[in-house]
Amino acid sequence: MFDAPTVIKTKRDGGRLSAEAIDWVVHAYSRGDVVGEQMSALLMAIFLRGMDRDEIAHWTAAMVASGERFDFSADFSDLPRPTVDKHSTGGVGDKLTLTVIPVVIACGGAVPQAAGRGLGHTGGTLDKLESIPGFTAELSKDRIRQQLCDVGAAIFAAGELAPADRKIYALRDVTGTTESLPLIASSVMSKKIAEGTRALVLDVKVGTGAFLKTEAESRELAHTMVELGVAHGLTTRALLTDMNTPLGRSVGNSVEVAEALEVLAGGGPGDVVELTLALAAEMLDAAGLDECDPADTLRDGSAMDCMRALIAAQGGDLSAPLPLGTHVETVSASQGGTMGDIDAMAVAMAAWRLGAGRARPGEPVQSGAGVRIHRRPGEPVSAGEPLFTLYTDTPERMGHAIAELNRGWRIGEFSRRPLLIDRIVS
Amino acid sequence: MFDAPTVIKTKRDGGRLSAEAIDWVVHAYSRGDVVGEQMSALLMAIFLRGMDRDEIAHWTAAMVASGERFDFSADFSDLPRPTVDKHSTGGVGDKLTLTVIPVVIACGGAVPQAAGRGLGHTGGTLDKLESIPGFTAELSKDRIRQQLCDVGAAIFAAGELAPADRKIYALRDVTGTTESLPLIASSVMSKKIAEGTRALVLDVKVGTGAFLKTEAESRELAHTMVELGVAHGLTTRALLTDMNTPLGRSVGNSVEVAEALEVLAGGGPGDVVELTLALAAEMLDAAGLDECDPADTLRDGSAMDCMRALIAAQGGDLSAPLPLGTHVETVSASQGGTMGDIDAMAVAMAAWRLGAGRARPGEPVQSGAGVRIHRRPGEPVSAGEPLFTLYTDTPERMGHAIAELNRGWRIGEFSRRPLLIDRIVS
Repeated sequence: MFDAPTVIKTKRDGGRLSAEAIDWVVHAYSRGDVVGEQMSALLMAIFLRGMDRDEIAHWTAAMVASGERFDFSADFSDLPRPTVDKHSTGGVGDKLTLTVIPVVIACGGAVPQAAGRGLGHTGGTLDKLESIPGFTAELSKDRIRQQLCDVGAAIFAAGELAPADRKIYALRDVTGTTESLPLIASSVMSKKIAEGTRALVLDVKVGTGAFLKTEAESRELAHTMVELGVAHGLTTRALLTDMNTPLGRSVGNSVEVAEALEVLAGGGPGDVVELTLALAAEMLDAAGLDECDPADTLRDGSAMDCMRALIAAQGGDLSAPLPLGTHVETVSASQGGTMGDIDAMAVAMAAWRLGAGRARPGEPVQSGAGVRIHRRPGEPVSAGEPLFTLYTDTPERMGHAIAELNRGWRIGEFSRRPLLIDRIVS
Repeated sequence: MFDAPTVIKTKRDGGRLSAEAIDWVVHAYSRGDVVGEQMSALLMAIFLRGMDRDEIAHWTAAMVASGERFDFSADFSDLPRPTVDKHSTGGVGDKLTLTVIPVVIACGGAVPQAAGRGLGHTGGTLDKLESIPGFTAELSKDRIRQQLCDVGAAIFAAGELAPADRKIYALRDVTGTTESLPLIASSVMSKKIAEGTRALVLDVKVGTGAFLKTEAESRELAHTMVELGVAHGLTTRALLTDMNTPLGRSVGNSVEVAEALEVLAGGGPGDVVELTLALAAEMLDAAGLDECDPADTLRDGSAMDCMRALIAAQGGDLSAPLPLGTHVETVSASQGGTMGDIDAMAVAMAAWRLGAGRARPGEPVQSGAGVRIHRRPGEPVSAGEPLFTLYTDTPERMGHAIAELNRGWRIGEFSRRPLLIDRIVS
């Protein structure tokens, strides 16, 4: 028999929570027997005292067990493709899901992706996709199964998968307990385990635009998540990638979709292409599909064909123009030189101020809000030339956004950093 | 402009909360703009990160300002007596309010006491007094004022004094954030400042039966509270007293009232008499009433007269028999010798199991539940002799209670400790 104050005090005083205590508190919170006030005190105690690997494993398993766990290999043995998914811990300008999934489909993989909406400074895959007219992510399990057969992927709202995680995630957002390694690892992995993929590649971000700020923390997070995946029978790997600079030349919703389509058309920014190919190769390898060269699918248009089929299957109309903010301002160079570092967090906050993100769960976002980056670090700049373009439907947000953006760039020195920092396998 | 997640994160990361941030968060929580989930995360961050003296002062002031602050000196200049109150940080068998107040009245003081109900392992003054048939603590401000003139004291439920504290106190109880120095100090002092006393003596407990377990913590708590009182214009002092052993020979509700009446009749346990006189002398000195010898009021019956008048004024009938649990069991000595240490916390838990305390706010308590201690540490014991008697109306609670009690005593060695450890003035 457990009671909430005793469980809270155990963690508060630096103790270990038993498997039974964790199972009890997660389920009692799901049922409403442990109230939000108690769970948020426990989450703060976990934030400040930490959890060890065993506690994180039990916490994750309890969240998985709070809802249904899909298993497409059992549900329909006629699925001819191995399932594999990717997950990013959250970056700025991170549209890689939109480029990687079509490449993997084109190479023979199937991707069942439970995706989220953005919260805080990072955008969500669903927010980006929903800027495409008609696109829906509210898919039934039957429709997900059908789409995996027909077009090779489904990107869907997590819905009733790991409902305890959904409730805890919303609580963390308003109680200052987001940036916690045990809570991030268990939240990500509970959804990925429940969605039914057999292989998983994690894109763990390192840098100013990531949730965890040091490389050591990101590395520990990657190891923890890989271990959790393997323990639940998923082939799991992680890439550590740089997130000091925004990815590509666009940050927002529709502007990121547009950039993803450029990449699928064989163009697009070099950093986005590089990480797309690295993640796709890792996913294909994890799925046992190593005969295909991902770069071919960008060159020959097959990835673009897969993207069109996927978007169309979910009701999206790529022939319609993507929305773009009606109010536009440009930040220009007052002097010539070389573009210096561009801080990912500053650009993220600017996009958020423009309306691309939300301040609380359930708020709508502006599909057309965002920032375009015309000069990336190291590129030459002439005086008077446009460096950034900002888009929003609410002009009163523009001033704040430009102020946030201008804290984050300069003409001058820039750091040369590798995009791909490390690869972590179990 | 503040928002709750930012305030929470500041404390979470070990920062200082500004006066403005504290004022905002306490008032926003009172209004419901900051929700319980957010306040409990902040309370856990305060528990683990602490607050400095300035933060505690601002937190206390914000809780005082959340309701009315009584001022009897301004309200009726015809009150001929100086006001002075006492507060205990919570002990086991601590019926000193019931003995000290009549002594102080008899010596010319007036005591406006906002009292509480017990929660956790310690009893509440109101729970004890409410075991007297007819007694009520629900007094209007007018009635409090009238009683201060007529009988020299009023013991009343805090009601709308410092309502933010009441809300936070209830939250702390269910979220494992009770035993925190900044939160204890601000909770006690906000009620005492709001109740309108001009002088205050704090009985700060040290030992196994106290909320804070080390003498260093209790000492720091005493200094903090004295400083808070002085800052709000109250003459404030503290006595550090031992709480390793229960006070006197009774722990519960009606059994403690009976023992207090014994003391007022000139008898009673030596330790209760000693602390009654020490606290009363300190209160009279703080109130500027130093011509009276408190011991005289116990000898000549004047303190008992004051007690009778006070109880009668609040509807209580001391001529009716006090309730006593209908189910009675005795713990006897299996061998002779000397009574060893009796652990305050074990006896408290036994009384709590018998029904003298409550598990959650608002629950009723059993007036007649409790423990009588027949042999105190150092007293000779013969084999077969009764050592403890336990009372309850719910016989199924008896087994657990005896088990709790038996963890806390032995025949053998006992520690000689001074009752009065130190005196702390600003």
